[in-house]
Amino acid sequence: MSNQIYQESVEIHRKNIGKLGTIALLPVKNKRDLSLLYTPGVAEPCRVIAKDKEESFQLTSRGRTVAVISDGSAVLGLGNIGPEASLPVMEGKALLMKEFAGIDAVPIAISTQEPKEIINFIRQIAPSFVGINIEDISAPRCFEIEAATQDLGITVFHDDQHGTAIVVTAALYNAARVVGKKFEDLKVVVVGAGAAGTAIALMLLGAEMNQTGCQKVSGVASVKDLILVDSKGAIHNGRTDLDIYKKDIAAYSNKEQKSGSLAEIIHGADVVIGVSRAGLISQEMVNSMAKDAIVFAMANPEPEIMPDLAKAAGAMVVATGRSDFNNQINNVLAFPGVFRAVVDGRLPRITTKMKHAAAMAIASLVANPTTEKVIPEPFEPNIAKVVSEAILKAR
Amino acid sequence: MSNQIYQESVEIHRKNIGKLGTIALLPVKNKRDLSLLYTPGVAEPCRVIAKDKEESFQLTSRGRTVAVISDGSAVLGLGNIGPEASLPVMEGKALLMKEFAGIDAVPIAISTQEPKEIINFIRQIAPSFVGINIEDISAPRCFEIEAATQDLGITVFHDDQHGTAIVVTAALYNAARVVGKKFEDLKVVVVGAGAAGTAIALMLLGAEMNQTGCQKVSGVASVKDLILVDSKGAIHNGRTDLDIYKKDIAAYSNKEQKSGSLAEIIHGADVVIGVSRAGLISQEMVNSMAKDAIVFAMANPEPEIMPDLAKAAGAMVVATGRSDFNNQINNVLAFPGVFRAVVDGRLPRITTKMKHAAAMAIASLVANPTTEKVIPEPFEPNIAKVVSEAILKAR
Repeated sequence: MSNQIYQESVEIHRKNIGKLGTIALLPVKNKRDLSLLYTPGVAEPCRVIAKDKEESFQLTSRGRTVAVISDGSAVLGLGNIGPEASLPVMEGKALLMKEFAGIDAVPIAISTQEPKEIINFIRQIAPSFVGINIEDISAPRCFEIEAATQDLGITVFHDDQHGTAIVVTAALYNAARVVGKKFEDLKVVVVGAGAAGTAIALMLLGAEMNQTGCQKVSGVASVKDLILVDSKGAIHNGRTDLDIYKKDIAAYSNKEQKSGSLAEIIHGADVVIGVSRAGLISQEMVNSMAKDAIVFAMANPEPEIMPDLAKAAGAMVVATGRSDFNNQINNVLAFPGVFRAVVDGRLPRITTKMKHAAAMAIASLVANPTTEKVIPEPFEPNIAKVVSEAILKAR
Repeated sequence: MSNQIYQESVEIHRKNIGKLGTIALLPVKNKRDLSLLYTPGVAEPCRVIAKDKEESFQLTSRGRTVAVISDGSAVLGLGNIGPEASLPVMEGKALLMKEFAGIDAVPIAISTQEPKEIINFIRQIAPSFVGINIEDISAPRCFEIEAATQDLGITVFHDDQHGTAIVVTAALYNAARVVGKKFEDLKVVVVGAGAAGTAIALMLLGAEMNQTGCQKVSGVASVKDLILVDSKGAIHNGRTDLDIYKKDIAAYSNKEQKSGSLAEIIHGADVVIGVSRAGLISQEMVNSMAKDAIVFAMANPEPEIMPDLAKAAGAMVVATGRSDFNNQINNVLAFPGVFRAVVDGRLPRITTKMKHAAAMAIASLVANPTTEKVIPEPFEPNIAKVVSEAILKAR
C-alpha cells in the first residue's frame, strides 16, 4: 500500500514535471498590453515604488507571494538530503498554500547549510516576498536563523517549529477537555528536542525565547509543568552538554529539575508528546503515566508508539502524524491560515499571542471533542479563514 | 499619451496586485491527493532525487522554471532604483516568458549590490531553477557576476547583454541586405559601453570574452571593424582610464586604434548603434557617415536621434527601441526563445554560437527585409519556437 503510494507519487510528479506552475493574470496579446505591462508603462509602477517601497506590496505579486525556503538539512523523516531532493516537499508546501489558502508561493531550495549564509540569503531575498516560510532546516541552526531574520519587515516563520506547535496546542487543548483535566494543570513530557519539540515546549509553557532566555508571554495559557527529553534524557540545569537553546529551556521548564531517562521522567505525566522516532515510547511507559493519559506520537512515518498499543496501555486520547489514524496532527491545519493572515494583514512577524490565537481557533472548530476527534480534518471547510481571522484579531 | 499609459499601468498593476500568479497543476481535494503530493508519498520523489540530482528537473517544477534576478541597479532608463522598485520589470519579464514561450518564471529582486554577494546568491539559489535570467544589473559588475556563474550546470544569462546583442545582430544582418552591403564589410560604431554596448560589440565582432581577453569564435561572422565609444570618446589601447573589460575590447576592436570623440569617429562609418542616451547623435554626425548609413538609436524612452531626423540626414535604415516607430529592436524577440531552449534542452549555458544561431533565426523571419522592416514584430507567430529550435540545433 505504502509502496504503491510512493510509486504513484513519483509517476504523477514525473508526468507533470512537478505540481505547481505560474500563470499570467493579465494577458499580453498586443502592443498595447506590452506597453502597459512592460515598457514603457511599467516604468511608472517602478517610480511609484522607488518613492515608497511599501507600494511594492500593492503593485507587484510580492503582495501575494510567499517563499518556501529550505536548505534540505532535515527533510521529513529523510534527514539531510540536500537542496535538490528537498524540492518536492517545498513545492508541495507551496501547492498547499495555494489550495488551502489561495496564496501564491514559490519553492526555493538553497545550496548552503551555513547559518550565517542562510541568514544573508534570507535578508537578500526579502524584497521579493510578503513572507518567508523556512522549512526543514535542522535544529539548532533554525533557531539562530529565525532569530536573525525577525527584523526584516516581513514575516519569517519556521513552520516545523511554530506550525507544529500551533496544531499540537490546539489538539492538546481539546484532549484536556476530553479527559476532564484543566490545560493549566497538565504535566507534560515532550520527547525530542529538535525544532518541533523545542517550539512545542515553549508554546505549551506560554513562553518565547529571546536573547536573555525564555520569557512568559502575558495572556497566554501555560501547562503546569513540562519536561523536554532529548536522546540523553531529561533536560535540566545540571547537564553540561546543552547548547544555549536547551540551556534556556532547562532553566525555564522542569520545575523540580528532574534528571533521568524517558522511562523515569514519564512516570505520572498527564501528557507525552513525541516528535522523535519510531518505537521510543513503550507500553510500560504509557502504563506508568497518570490516569487517562494523553499520547501524541508524531514521529513519521512510524510513530513512537502505535495507537492501539498506547490505548491498550491506558491512554485515553491518542494522536499521530498519520492520515490513516484518527486525530492526525498535521501542519496543514495551520500554515495556510498563518500565511493568509501574513498576506492580508501585511504582518511583519507572527507573535506568540497570534500563535495561541491560531491554536484556539483550530481547537474551536471541533465543537464537541471526543477521544477520536480532538482536531479538525485537513479538508474541513474554512480552516485557513478561521485561523487567519484569529491571527489578525490578535494583532 | 505617454502619461496616460503610465497612469493606466499603475492602475492595472494595483488592481491585480501585479500580473503573475501561481497555479496548482494538480488538485489537492482529498486525503489521497494529500498523501500523493505531500506526506507520505512525496518522500519517494525526494529519495529518487537524492540518488540523482538530475531527476529534480523531471520530478519538480524546477525543470520548467526560470528565475529573473535583479539587484535593481540599472533598471530601464530609471537607473539605480533598488530591488523593490525593480520588481514590476522583473515580474513583467517573467510574465513575457509565460506568454511568449510557455515557461514558468519567478521574479526575484535582491537587497545587495555587492558582486561577490550577488555571485554567492546566484550560486545558492541555483538548485531551485533550470535557468537564471539576470537583469538590469549595471556594468561592469554584470560581467564579473556572469563570468563567475557559468559553471553552475544551469544557464545564467544576462539578457541586457546577450538578448540585446542577439536582436541587434539580427536587425543589422537584414539591414545590411537592405542597403546592399556585406555584413563582413561593415564599419560599425557602438555608442555606449555598458552591458548592452559591450555585448553588441563582442557579438558583431564574432568574439567572446574570457579570462585571457577577447577571442574569435570560429564559424561566427564578424563585421570588418568596430569602434566602441563611451562618454570619454573612442575606446583604444592608449587610454589609461579603462577597466579590464574595456581594455580587452580596446585590444580586440578599433583596428586603427583611433582616438577621438563620437563626432570624429563616426565619420565614414556604415553603421552607428546607440545604447546610450537621448540626443547623443546629431544630424551632422549621420551626414558624415558612409552612403546609405544604418542608424540604430536605441536609448529609451528618447532615442539618440529621432528617426525622421536621421533619415533627413541620409540614413537609409533606422531602428529604435520604441514600439511607435517601425523597426523596434526589442529583447522580447529573443529571451523567451532562449529560455525555451534552456528548458527543452537542459542547457548548462548559452554559447556565442547559439546566440548567433538565434540572431540568424530571428533575421530569417523577415523574408524580404525593407528599410521599414528589418526585424519581426513581437507578436508575429512562432518567434520563440524558431529561436529555440535554432539554439538547440547549434548545440
